[in-house]
Amino acid sequence: MLHTHLCVMGDPCWKMNIHNKMKQMKRGHAQSNQNGIGTLESGSSTRIFDKLQATIQNIINARANASSDIAVCQFSNDYYKLDQSNKHRILTLLATKYGVNRTNIQNLSQQYSDLCKAEKETKEEKNTPALYRTEHSLRSALTPLSVQLFKQINCQPGGLKFLVDMRADLRMLIEDQNLPAFRYLDTCLKEILETALSPALLELHLFTWEDPAAILEKLVIFEAVHPISNLYDLKRRLGSERRCFGYFHPSLPGEPLIFIEVALTRSIVGCIQDVLRNESPTPEDEATTALFYSISSTQPGLTGISLGKLLIKRVVGVLQQEMPKIMTFATLSPIPGFMSWLLPRLASESQSFSSSRMQQDSERKSLFKENLLHAQEARSLLESCRTSFLMGTCRTAENQTAENIMWNILTFPRKELIRSESLQGVIKPILLRLCARYLLLEKRRGKALDVVTNFHVQNGALIERLNWMGDFSERGLNQSAGITVNYCYRLDKIEENIGNYLEKGIISSSSMLKDLLEPKSMSPG
Amino acid sequence: MLHTHLCVMGDPCWKMNIHNKMKQMKRGHAQSNQNGIGTLESGSSTRIFDKLQATIQNIINARANASSDIAVCQFSNDYYKLDQSNKHRILTLLATKYGVNRTNIQNLSQQYSDLCKAEKETKEEKNTPALYRTEHSLRSALTPLSVQLFKQINCQPGGLKFLVDMRADLRMLIEDQNLPAFRYLDTCLKEILETALSPALLELHLFTWEDPAAILEKLVIFEAVHPISNLYDLKRRLGSERRCFGYFHPSLPGEPLIFIEVALTRSIVGCIQDVLRNESPTPEDEATTALFYSISSTQPGLTGISLGKLLIKRVVGVLQQEMPKIMTFATLSPIPGFMSWLLPRLASESQSFSSSRMQQDSERKSLFKENLLHAQEARSLLESCRTSFLMGTCRTAENQTAENIMWNILTFPRKELIRSESLQGVIKPILLRLCARYLLLEKRRGKALDVVTNFHVQNGALIERLNWMGDFSERGLNQSAGITVNYCYRLDKIEENIGNYLEKGIISSSSMLKDLLEPKSMSPG
Repeated sequence: MLHTHLCVMGDPCWKMNIHNKMKQMKRGHAQSNQNGIGTLESGSSTRIFDKLQATIQNIINARANASSDIAVCQFSNDYYKLDQSNKHRILTLLATKYGVNRTNIQNLSQQYSDLCKAEKETKEEKNTPALYRTEHSLRSALTPLSVQLFKQINCQPGGLKFLVDMRADLRMLIEDQNLPAFRYLDTCLKEILETALSPALLELHLFTWEDPAAILEKLVIFEAVHPISNLYDLKRRLGSERRCFGYFHPSLPGEPLIFIEVALTRSIVGCIQDVLRNESPTPEDEATTALFYSISSTQPGLTGISLGKLLIKRVVGVLQQEMPKIMTFATLSPIPGFMSWLLPRLASESQSFSSSRMQQDSERKSLFKENLLHAQEARSLLESCRTSFLMGTCRTAENQTAENIMWNILTFPRKELIRSESLQGVIKPILLRLCARYLLLEKRRGKALDVVTNFHVQNGALIERLNWMGDFSERGLNQSAGITVNYCYRLDKIEENIGNYLEKGIISSSSMLKDLLEPKSMSPG
Repeated sequence: MLHTHLCVMGDPCWKMNIHNKMKQMKRGHAQSNQNGIGTLESGSSTRIFDKLQATIQNIINARANASSDIAVCQFSNDYYKLDQSNKHRILTLLATKYGVNRTNIQNLSQQYSDLCKAEKETKEEKNTPALYRTEHSLRSALTPLSVQLFKQINCQPGGLKFLVDMRADLRMLIEDQNLPAFRYLDTCLKEILETALSPALLELHLFTWEDPAAILEKLVIFEAVHPISNLYDLKRRLGSERRCFGYFHPSLPGEPLIFIEVALTRSIVGCIQDVLRNESPTPEDEATTALFYSISSTQPGLTGISLGKLLIKRVVGVLQQEMPKIMTFATLSPIPGFMSWLLPRLASESQSFSSSRMQQDSERKSLFKENLLHAQEARSLLESCRTSFLMGTCRTAENQTAENIMWNILTFPRKELIRSESLQGVIKPILLRLCARYLLLEKRRGKALDVVTNFHVQNGALIERLNWMGDFSERGLNQSAGITVNYCYRLDKIEENIGNYLEKGIISSSSMLKDLLEPKSMSPG
C-alpha cells in the first residue's frame, strides 16, 4: 500500500514526506504489486505460504500444460501478498526443493564419461548420437525445476515484471545469506530475464514536467547519484538546458528501468554543485556540450543486466539529431571507490613504517611499502605538518609519517582539512595524482577497479579530466575527497577505446591524466 | 527480392500470380530480409561466407562486449545475403565448430562424480559450494558457444526476427540431414526464442479489407488449412459474418505470427464448403455460434512454440465481449491423419488374412488381426461387393476380404467410390465409427495421435460431432475420406476437460461420438 499513501506531487507535504518514504520504498518496492495490494499480517501470510507451496507443486507437476495458467496467475498474486520472511521461505523452497536432482546429474555424468571413453577406445564415432542425447539430458538435469515455473510466469501478462520483482527479493535474501543454492537460482533467473527483456524493445522516453507525477516520483525515488532534494530541484532537472531520458519496456509498463540526466552547457563542467544549482544557465542554442551528470537504474531485479550502455548510445544519437551544434559528449561522474581504496593503503603504510622502525628492519619495509607517496610529496606533507595548524592534529609530530599525516587530513571530522585553503597547495597535487593512478592503473581481473570507470571505459569513453572540489557535498568528500571526473565520448574513437581496453587492458585518457600520473617536474622518490 | 516482384493486390495479374509465388515464398520466405536484399550469385555468396566465418570468430572471442555490436549487425546483414547452400554451411559451422567442448564437459563430469562420492563418504556437506560451482560450470560447458552469438543477436533491433528466420533455415537443414548436432542447436535456439518471445507482448489484430495488401498477402501465403483461391475468397473471409484475428509481436513488425478464421453462424456447421461459399450468410445479429474454421501459423522458425492456445482463448474473450449472443464456440476442423492411420492397417489386415488362409493357420490370424471391422460391417461390405458395381474393381471377388474391399473403395481413383451414393449406406457408418475410434482412442505417448485433436483437446475442447462429407475437396477426401470434425469449447468445462486429458488420458466427447464408437444396434464380431 506504499504507493497510495504518498501525497500527490502538488501537495505541500510532498516535499517533506518524500525523503522519509524514499528509503522505505526503495527497499519495499518489490513488495507492493501493481494493484496496490500490500503485504498481510504474519498469520495470514503463513496461510498463503502453505497454499503457495501446493500451487508450486501443481505447476511443476503439470509442466507446460494449459491447466496451470490459472495456477500460475494465482502464484504471482499470492506471492505479492506475502510478508518478507514468507517470501524468503518461498525463495528458499524454490532454490532447494525445486533445484536440481543430484543423483540424476551424477548418473548422467557417469554415463557421459563412459561414452567418451568408449568412443576414444574404439576410435569410431558411433556414439555421437548417444553423446548428444546425454548432453541434452545433462543440460536439462542441470536446469532447476523452478526454471519451469519462471518460464511459465514469463508467458503471463505482467509475468516479466513479477520475475524482476522476485529477483529483487532474491538479491535481498542473498545479501542476508550468501548461499550457493541462492546464487545458482539467481544465475538461472538472470539468464531468463536477460533473454526475455529483448533490449530491442526498450522505448526511449524524454521526461518532462508534463509527465504524470506517478512516473516522475520514480525519478525521485531512484536517483542514485545526486539525490533530488525537493520539487524545485526536480523541476529544474527537467527544465530547459536540461534533458532527462529513460528507458521503458512494454513488459514493465509505468516503470522507467534506467534514466540519465543531461545538462546542456558551453564546456565540460567539472563541479556538480554548479550543474545542480544552474545559476548561470547556457541558452540552449549556445550549448555545444551534452554533460551526462547522473545515471540511475531502478530495478534491483535487473542487477547485472546492463542497459546503461544502450541508453547512452541512444541518447547521444537523439541529441546529435536534435542539436547538431552539440559536438562534445561528456560525463560529470563521481569516483565512488577512491577513498575506500586509498585510506586502507595509507593506514597500512603508516603501520608497516612504524613497525619497521621498531624492528630496524628496513628490508622488510621496502618489501611491503607500496610507495604510495613520492619522496617530494612526503617531504612537503611533513613540512606542512610542522608549519601549519596540523601540528594540533598529530599527537607527536616527530613520529608521524607522511602517510599518517595524509590519513589524518582525509579522515578529519567534517573533512575540514581537505577543504582548508592553506593545505590545498600541498594536498591537491598529491590527491589528484593518486586519483589518476587509482582510475587508470588499479585493476581487478583486468578491469578498472572503479565501477563507474569500468562502465564508461568499456562503453568507449576516455578519461578527460579530474576536478578538484568537483563535488563538495558530504558524499563527494567521503567518496573521493571531493574530486570528480569527466569521461568523454569522442564518437570517432569509441571503437578504438573499447578495443584497447578489452584486448590490452589500456584505459584511454587525455594528456591531463597522463601528466598527473607522471608529473614532469617531479622525479619519483 | 521476392516481395517486390509481387504485383499489387488490385492488379489483374495478382490472382493468377499469387499461387505460383506461394510455394516459392513459403520456402524462400526466410531468405529475403526486411530490406528486400535478396540472395546473391554463388561466387559472391561464398566470399560472404568466408567473411561471416571471421565475424563469428570475432563475436565469440569478444563475448558480451560492446565492440561486437557492429559485428553482430554485420553478421545478420551478411547472413541474409547468402544462398541456401552457404546458409547451410554457416549453420553447420555453428552446430559443430561452435558447439560444446567435450573434453571440458568430460573433465567436469568426472569432477562432479568425485565430489558426489566424497560427499557420500564423509557424510558432510562441506562440498556443497563446490558442487554448485561444478554444476554451474557444467551447465555453461553444455551451452554451445553459438548461443552467445544468438543472445547477442537477440539484443539488436530486428534480432528476434533474424533468429526466427535462421531457425527456419535450420529446420529445413534438419529435414535434409537429421543430424544430432543440428537437433542440439535447434533445441538451444528454440529455448531462446521461447523466452524472448514473451507471449504477454503479443498484440491481437482483427484483419479487415482496410489492411495493407502487404499484410493481407501473408494470409494468402500462409493459410495452411483451406487455401485462399482468389481475391474474392480473401475478401469474403474478411467480410461481415466473418472475423479473422491474428497475433503480431512488437519484435517482428509486419508479420502475423498466427491467425484464425471465424464464421458467425446460427449453429455448428459441419461442411467446410458451405462455410467457404457462404451462400446463405447469417446476419451478424442472429449469430449464436462462433465457428473457428481455420488456424495457421506463419513462422517455421517458431515450430514447437505454441501460440494457438493463447490466440483461441483471447479471441473467445473478444467475441464474448463484442457479441454476447454468441454462446457456442466450436471449430470445423480437418482430420489430417485419419487416412494415413487407416489405410496401412486395412492393407496389413488383408495381407495377414490371405497369408493365414494359405497357411490354414487361424491361430496366427487372430493374433495379428486388429479387428478393424466388426463382423456385421464385414458382412455388409462383402454383400455390397457382390451386388454392386464394385465387382468390377475386385479381381476375384471370392478372394476378397472386407478389409480389402474397404481399401479398394478408399483408394479408388478420384475417390469416386467414397462419394458414390449407392455405397454410402454401407461405408458411412463404418468410416464414421473408425474415425471416432481414431480420434478418441488412438494415442501416442498418451496423447491423441491426430495432431489437430491433440491441439484442441489439450486446450480444453471436447469432440462434438463428426460430419460425413464435411470436406469433399480433394484434400479432404484424401486426408479423412471427406469427414470433418467439430471440436467444441464449452467454457465451463474447459479446465475439467484439460484435467481429464492430461491426468487420465481421457478425451472428452459428446454422446454422438460415444454412440458411434459403440453402436447400440451392433454387437462386436
